[in-house]
Amino acid sequence: MNQPLSPAILKRPLPPEVLVGLQAIFGERVSTAHAMREHHGRDESAYDPMLPDAVVFAHTSDEVAAAVVLCAAHAVPVIAWGTGTSLEGHVLALQGGVTIDLSQMKQVLAIHADDATATVQAGVTRKQLNTALRDTGLFFPIDPGADASLGGMAATRASGTNAVRYGTMRENTLALKVVTADGRIIRTGSRARKSSAGYDLTRVFVGSEGTLGIITEVTVRLYPQPEAISAAVCSFPSAGAAVTTVIRTIQMGVPVARVEFLDENSVRAINAHDHLDLPVKPLLLFEFHGSEAGVAEQAGLVQQIADEHGASDFAWATHPEERSKLWAARHNAYFALLQMRPGGRAITTDCCVPISRLAECILETKADCEAEQMIYSIIGHVGDGNFHVLMMVDPHDPDETAQAEAINARMVTRALAMDGTCTGEHGVGLHKMDFLIEEHGADAIDTMRALKHALDPKNILNPGKIIRW
Amino acid sequence: MNQPLSPAILKRPLPPEVLVGLQAIFGERVSTAHAMREHHGRDESAYDPMLPDAVVFAHTSDEVAAAVVLCAAHAVPVIAWGTGTSLEGHVLALQGGVTIDLSQMKQVLAIHADDATATVQAGVTRKQLNTALRDTGLFFPIDPGADASLGGMAATRASGTNAVRYGTMRENTLALKVVTADGRIIRTGSRARKSSAGYDLTRVFVGSEGTLGIITEVTVRLYPQPEAISAAVCSFPSAGAAVTTVIRTIQMGVPVARVEFLDENSVRAINAHDHLDLPVKPLLLFEFHGSEAGVAEQAGLVQQIADEHGASDFAWATHPEERSKLWAARHNAYFALLQMRPGGRAITTDCCVPISRLAECILETKADCEAEQMIYSIIGHVGDGNFHVLMMVDPHDPDETAQAEAINARMVTRALAMDGTCTGEHGVGLHKMDFLIEEHGADAIDTMRALKHALDPKNILNPGKIIRW
Repeated sequence: MNQPLSPAILKRPLPPEVLVGLQAIFGERVSTAHAMREHHGRDESAYDPMLPDAVVFAHTSDEVAAAVVLCAAHAVPVIAWGTGTSLEGHVLALQGGVTIDLSQMKQVLAIHADDATATVQAGVTRKQLNTALRDTGLFFPIDPGADASLGGMAATRASGTNAVRYGTMRENTLALKVVTADGRIIRTGSRARKSSAGYDLTRVFVGSEGTLGIITEVTVRLYPQPEAISAAVCSFPSAGAAVTTVIRTIQMGVPVARVEFLDENSVRAINAHDHLDLPVKPLLLFEFHGSEAGVAEQAGLVQQIADEHGASDFAWATHPEERSKLWAARHNAYFALLQMRPGGRAITTDCCVPISRLAECILETKADCEAEQMIYSIIGHVGDGNFHVLMMVDPHDPDETAQAEAINARMVTRALAMDGTCTGEHGVGLHKMDFLIEEHGADAIDTMRALKHALDPKNILNPGKIIRW
Repeated sequence: MNQPLSPAILKRPLPPEVLVGLQAIFGERVSTAHAMREHHGRDESAYDPMLPDAVVFAHTSDEVAAAVVLCAAHAVPVIAWGTGTSLEGHVLALQGGVTIDLSQMKQVLAIHADDATATVQAGVTRKQLNTALRDTGLFFPIDPGADASLGGMAATRASGTNAVRYGTMRENTLALKVVTADGRIIRTGSRARKSSAGYDLTRVFVGSEGTLGIITEVTVRLYPQPEAISAAVCSFPSAGAAVTTVIRTIQMGVPVARVEFLDENSVRAINAHDHLDLPVKPLLLFEFHGSEAGVAEQAGLVQQIADEHGASDFAWATHPEERSKLWAARHNAYFALLQMRPGGRAITTDCCVPISRLAECILETKADCEAEQMIYSIIGHVGDGNFHVLMMVDPHDPDETAQAEAINARMVTRALAMDGTCTGEHGVGLHKMDFLIEEHGADAIDTMRALKHALDPKNILNPGKIIRW
């Protein structure tokens, strides 16, 4: 599937002095082994691996900076790597170079419980942070599914299930430590909750996918653990009825913490994978956070709206174990779906539209998948207007891949016509570069390119991603 | 007070062909009258006016673009102007040039009630937008005090009283239309609630104070009008007790919509100005939004915390008229304070710190003002850790101004030592440029400068603000 990429790539061999220099900085923590390079040359996208020439494991911002200085001097590409769970080809070493694996930067540097902030090294994952927070009464809500690193989550502007209530990495990143393309280390903000002190460097780097700088530390907002949590699951006669329930819930301003849509294909897959017996119908999975009374009030409102749209099998899960089981199933959906077609390859995509257009967008996309007889499922963080399509294709049949990509293209065109975006949370990577132009227009892309040229004048930071040089 | 600015200014006369060109674009809507230039050469800061050479009144993005193309061709400065209510010298025409007044761009272009978004021309003020929303059940929460334009609010990353609950312009701006320094018109986002589609151009321009582009349209998030609103006011034996009440409220995660601190000087001033008889003691003004039950729950919690800190005269204002009277008094505080010293000049400043450090920061700043025998008051959007100091000085006594500036400098140093920011919401303008370097460090400022050079290579957009070229 790397056909759209190969032509323009000019891959130069790694200069030997760079390898020597890396060994001087990282000692044993440099690898040129094929297996290591291959592991770092792929993510969870459908792309074939594209290998870096070397992989280094950083422990400090200073080491990252030293590696960047060395690579900059020889115009060698530098790719930051967290957990490799990106979905659109973000970390593939399109032009070779050096992958800096940050996963060993695992120090939780500071938890300021009194201020509800935490500062961590980039390799700390969201689960690790939440474990460290266990005794504080606080939690970090952003949950993209994978146990991703906070550096990677910031770099891809991740969000996920809790974003409808708590926002995305855009809203929850207070400050970053970043290594710039010339190897300087900057800090982009403070721990103040708001600031008007100059250009918003934090948000310049959040979502820049390693193309403007390498994030080595992240300061995030935390939230008090809610006094009460309850979850509810309910089935609907149609996808339209389910999504309309969500639209109405959001329009009424009910502050749901999570609301996930699973189409009947997803339900079938997680039933099989997680040994559940959910009705094989479109399903919504809600979670409510608040005081005991507040949660009951929210849940009552939602049940009423759901009833009006023909919901059935409304079931409450107030016990932590029940809740965990349901959410574990939701989190496993990706893996469950892979089993829908053993030996198949998953092509995933996402988009996000204004909430009023969500039912239309999902239903038309679903109809398109049906018409093409695709093996597919649709899952969504629907409270934000965001949904995912996962299509299972035969990796040996280029027509099927082309068909899936055509469905993806039509979905994006549909989302853009509704004043939505070509990706709500996956990011651009390689897969959405052309759609980015369609979404923003050539002049806005020129403005993005001006940022890239200004902050990475030698084009060494994750080159070939987001925008063309 | 323009002593720090004058030396380096190289002001060239406006080339006559620029004036002719502007008249071709704007017809009668061009002025070179002294009164008009003087009106546009000042804001609500203490700086003496610095006049542009001409003022034009734009009606469309195309007109703004045409003016920018013309000015760019002659390297003439262009300053965007909304309502002139900025506080740190943002709109002063340091190098002359052309001020583009956007206040006649007053069209509410679209209200998408089903999506809770609105798109307006830059000159629409927050009150005008809320009037337009009256029948929709929605409102736009951001309230910096002044009835500022949404273009100006986006440009300065404004926030204000409701930010603790609803966020600032950073979180609530979905998309912008922007005229770039070479006169192109770009759109920076969609109406989707979240997006990972490339660099976050929206937040590059939000808070850039007209130095990177001219905002001509703004798309914002709206919120359902709460089912219930209540307000409470209570007095405290000391500023420390009041602020500690706020810290505890925020740490417990009570979702207050507003919480404002007024020191005893502020209370005395608004009593006189608004004919109120509030006890002349430090005071908190709360507002709660939610369901009837939710509001009662929040208010109960807060009253309990306040009681623990010695609150007295706890009074509820659930009727709209009572609430309006209290909030009107709060909003008039600035004008009330000006009357504390007739003929005086106000020097205002703000900072923002992590919530746990707020009491310390306010008390030390207060002690500093007292030690210097300053006529001053402190008011704060304390839920965010943000507060303002207003000092009234004799405009004819340079020592008093120097004294006030020294207090300001010490406040900033104090806030930065607490990992806060030199300005929570006023912005940088002219007044905080040096503090910006202190806050971010030279390397981060270089990164900001790289953005400025990339997006405004001729330095024509509001030159001399935020960072030095």
